Amino acid sequence: MGKIRSDIAWSTVDRIVVRGKSFPDEILGKMNLGDFSWLQLTGTVPTPQQSNVFNAIIVALVEHGVTPSVIVARMTYACAPESLQAAVAAGLCGLGSNVVGSMEGAARYLSEALPKDAPADADLDALAQQIVARFRQSKSPIPGIGHAIHKSGDPRTPRLFAIAEENGYAGRYVQLLQRVHAEAQRASGKSMPINATGAIGAISCELGFSWKITRGFGVMARAIGLVGHILEETENPMSGEVWSRTEHESSSHLRPGVVAS
Amino acid sequence: MGKIRSDIAWSTVDRIVVRGKSFPDEILGKMNLGDFSWLQLTGTVPTPQQSNVFNAIIVALVEHGVTPSVIVARMTYACAPESLQAAVAAGLCGLGSNVVGSMEGAARYLSEALPKDAPADADLDALAQQIVARFRQSKSPIPGIGHAIHKSGDPRTPRLFAIAEENGYAGRYVQLLQRVHAEAQRASGKSMPINATGAIGAISCELGFSWKITRGFGVMARAIGLVGHILEETENPMSGEVWSRTEHESSSHLRPGVVAS
Amino acid sequence: MGKIRSDIAWSTVDRIVVRGKSFPDEILGKMNLGDFSWLQLTGTVPTPQQSNVFNAIIVALVEHGVTPSVIVARMTYACAPESLQAAVAAGLCGLGSNVVGSMEGAARYLSEALPKDAPADADLDALAQQIVARFRQSKSPIPGIGHAIHKSGDPRTPRLFAIAEENGYAGRYVQLLQRVHAEAQRASGKSMPINATGAIGAISCELGFSWKITRGFGVMARAIGLVGHILEETENPMSGEVWSRTEHESSSHLRPGVVAS
Amino acid sequence: MGKIRSDIAWSTVDRIVVRGKSFPDEILGKMNLGDFSWLQLTGTVPTPQQSNVFNAIIVALVEHGVTPSVIVARMTYACAPESLQAAVAAGLCGLGSNVVGSMEGAARYLSEALPKDAPADADLDALAQQIVARFRQSKSPIPGIGHAIHKSGDPRTPRLFAIAEENGYAGRYVQLLQRVHAEAQRASGKSMPINATGAIGAISCELGFSWKITRGFGVMARAIGLVGHILEETENPMSGEVWSRTEHESSSHLRPGVVAS
Repeated sequence: MGKIRSDIAWSTVDRIVVRGKSFPDEILGKMNLGDFSWLQLTGTVPTPQQSNVFNAIIVALVEHGVTPSVIVARMTYACAPESLQAAVAAGLCGLGSNVVGSMEGAARYLSEALPKDAPADADLDALAQQIVARFRQSKSPIPGIGHAIHKSGDPRTPRLFAIAEENGYAGRYVQLLQRVHAEAQRASGKSMPINATGAIGAISCELGFSWKITRGFGVMARAIGLVGHILEETENPMSGEVWSRTEHESSSHLRPGVVAS
Repeated sequence: MGKIRSDIAWSTVDRIVVRGKSFPDEILGKMNLGDFSWLQLTGTVPTPQQSNVFNAIIVALVEHGVTPSVIVARMTYACAPESLQAAVAAGLCGLGSNVVGSMEGAARYLSEALPKDAPADADLDALAQQIVARFRQSKSPIPGIGHAIHKSGDPRTPRLFAIAEENGYAGRYVQLLQRVHAEAQRASGKSMPINATGAIGAISCELGFSWKITRGFGVMARAIGLVGHILEETENPMSGEVWSRTEHESSSHLRPGVVAS
Repeated sequence: MGKIRSDIAWSTVDRIVVRGKSFPDEILGKMNLGDFSWLQLTGTVPTPQQSNVFNAIIVALVEHGVTPSVIVARMTYACAPESLQAAVAAGLCGLGSNVVGSMEGAARYLSEALPKDAPADADLDALAQQIVARFRQSKSPIPGIGHAIHKSGDPRTPRLFAIAEENGYAGRYVQLLQRVHAEAQRASGKSMPINATGAIGAISCELGFSWKITRGFGVMARAIGLVGHILEETENPMSGEVWSRTEHESSSHLRPGVVAS
Repeated sequence: MGKIRSDIAWSTVDRIVVRGKSFPDEILGKMNLGDFSWLQLTGTVPTPQQSNVFNAIIVALVEHGVTPSVIVARMTYACAPESLQAAVAAGLCGLGSNVVGSMEGAARYLSEALPKDAPADADLDALAQQIVARFRQSKSPIPGIGHAIHKSGDPRTPRLFAIAEENGYAGRYVQLLQRVHAEAQRASGKSMPINATGAIGAISCELGFSWKITRGFGVMARAIGLVGHILEETENPMSGEVWSRTEHESSSHLRPGVVAS
């Protein structure tokens, strides 16, 4: 028979221990939400530098405007206000390959190109050329490069890199992403920015996270963002209007007496 | 035609503004995750006292051991590892009336008994008696009172109240919950603790939040906790074992040649 | 230690048995989807009459136009096309109190007024008056009565009642709903139809189902409807357009240089 | 501005039309659930042969025992019984690559090998060799081939092929899957069955469905199965027991005074 085992937490009648620390005495009131998230994920207390960088990358993922996830969560809440949790869940379901996949994709090619035991003198330019060539060959966009709105530069990217730099976390993964960016512009002949999710993917590698969990950063951050939007929906709803306009327009070409647009 | 309007964020080709602040310049690297969550929810920057109390109540909701939500998220991830977001979503779906409902229930009866315009000399003992009488009459448990494991005292509760007190947020809602607790013990003749979700419900009222959004605190916090468990599942899986044992035992009484237990 | 036991199905290396029947030999190719759904839910093979009525009420719940659930599922699919299952799941999350709750609510008050051991001469008019009075006192709408669009009559209702009647399932629950309808119109002085979900709630009681599971009829039916809409979204997408219009309008009052509407 | 348009249904004050048919007059009471599902998906009324085959493949996907999806749905329901819809949604979230992905994968390689305009004399043996070689090269299992329990033959497969054959839907896709099966056994030197989801994938191609929607068949069918399990959970619960055993065992190695196993 296999094992059923978790090393994260345990409790008894009078104790609660998380990651080896007394939760009431050593965590509650002593760690902020970002730092405790790091502890929950890694089992270690972040250094001040890790705290600065990790809080920044998670904060960067909380609020991205009225995205499909936001519309989905607000609409679901309006239909089932007794289940706020299901409205957030519905919103999170859309954080797939076309959304947070970019962060994961960048973290993946960076960490596969530079595994933890990569030689100190790895040729970043050669690696960047290989990465760009591979994506161009399969005619896929390069995760982390380009942005639909911030075409001339994602304003979060230089800030994220500066925060990483100030805290000693702008190493080879950040450099490799910058080489990928340069090579992608050279090969395509187009100007494109490094986007924020690309920067976060690189910084996640710097912090030692596996690319497999980076999508989770987007999920946990966006859960916070969605709760904010649901709170606004309770005060200033938009979902009924989105619904009625969409419903009306979508079938107007079928309804008798209506001239199709 | 109705309005479709959100006041949370906007962006242009070179700017991103959240809650009226330049996201790259005023938020990124300058606010931790808990403080930015407050800004996302309320539109204001928390005071140091609000930050201390808010970070503590959200931290208190992140990790509650191997709950049904955790088992659900880990199992879902094992079946659909390409959709980490859907695994978290599945886990969140169970944060209903029997789980986070307790926090919401406590915040609701406290805020309904003491609306924002309640007179300064409201009789807390009388209100507590009414609240307890109402739940006892409908034979419902009183949200925020009692705990299945921490029978002689939830170790988080005194810490949460102390943090609230130190920061000036242990006012009438906390006092009313304590009176409800005393009255519940008197009326039932049983010793029961104030549980952590009850304390958080009261403190949420102190911070000015509507009871309608308190469930969201549990949802956003638990999303973080679930990502931690999914990360552990990638390294040290339990869900296959839970599945195979459950499947085997559940139908063993039906299978021929097996003596039913 | 408690029991972990399910009586629905079992399998061995060469057999699969569902509800006591050999799945390959007695079910596959011999029962249609509606009849097998009945077997899955009740453990019995439906009579032809039960089959007619049950298929009709589930069919009635599959497709209700471009509802919020549909918009949610289509948007989620567009963001995470690799997770069609999560798109359907997101759509189902909104089938709450404001949607399928009406069917459940009607089934509940009908079955509570006429429990299985109710006397044969129960006074349906008196029961109807009590039901209507109770909802009017709490200023709640009466589940099953009224419709936002089909104000002068829901065209599905007479058909559903006729199908129930033809098959011997238009008994006291249907009659009681009709009395509730008459009394609701009398008491309010307004003309309102019995809506389709109300009729389905009553017919579910006739078929012997608990009100607690009626919401599940809506959920399983709508899952089918949502797959149809997702298929259309792959061929003729609308979700990108709904998103971009909503995003643009929602923040236009905040963006500089834009005159707020 | 783009279009927002759906061709599935429309309604007015007194009419409801689905796929061009009067819903009350032409569908309700005249089509069973499986046939109406076909209409919802394809826009056409199925022939008797299509009805037989389609009902069989959907029925085959409803109930697969106590799967992870079932455990997830039952646990979620126990935590949030007021949101049956979210419990089904949570269960569906796990129908990913490791579950229904097999049906989709088989439909995909079959339809890509034999596109609709494939020549009548396409060499099925050569195609089968290419398919098997490709999967073996990437060391991936071949979707549709092999079964963890039914090692010597999935008892549903011959029945599904027989139903397809009897109704004129056992054409080149079924034949190609059978050649893939033969080649897979030859190349690996192992005996393995064609599993039911593989057979369904092939039959879906015969019926003209795109591989992209086959996963949806599993999703809509399993929604029905999950409602059946939730109904059983209301009567004969298992989820509390699964939870308490899992929670206890998972942290027993951490708790003081407990000798780790």
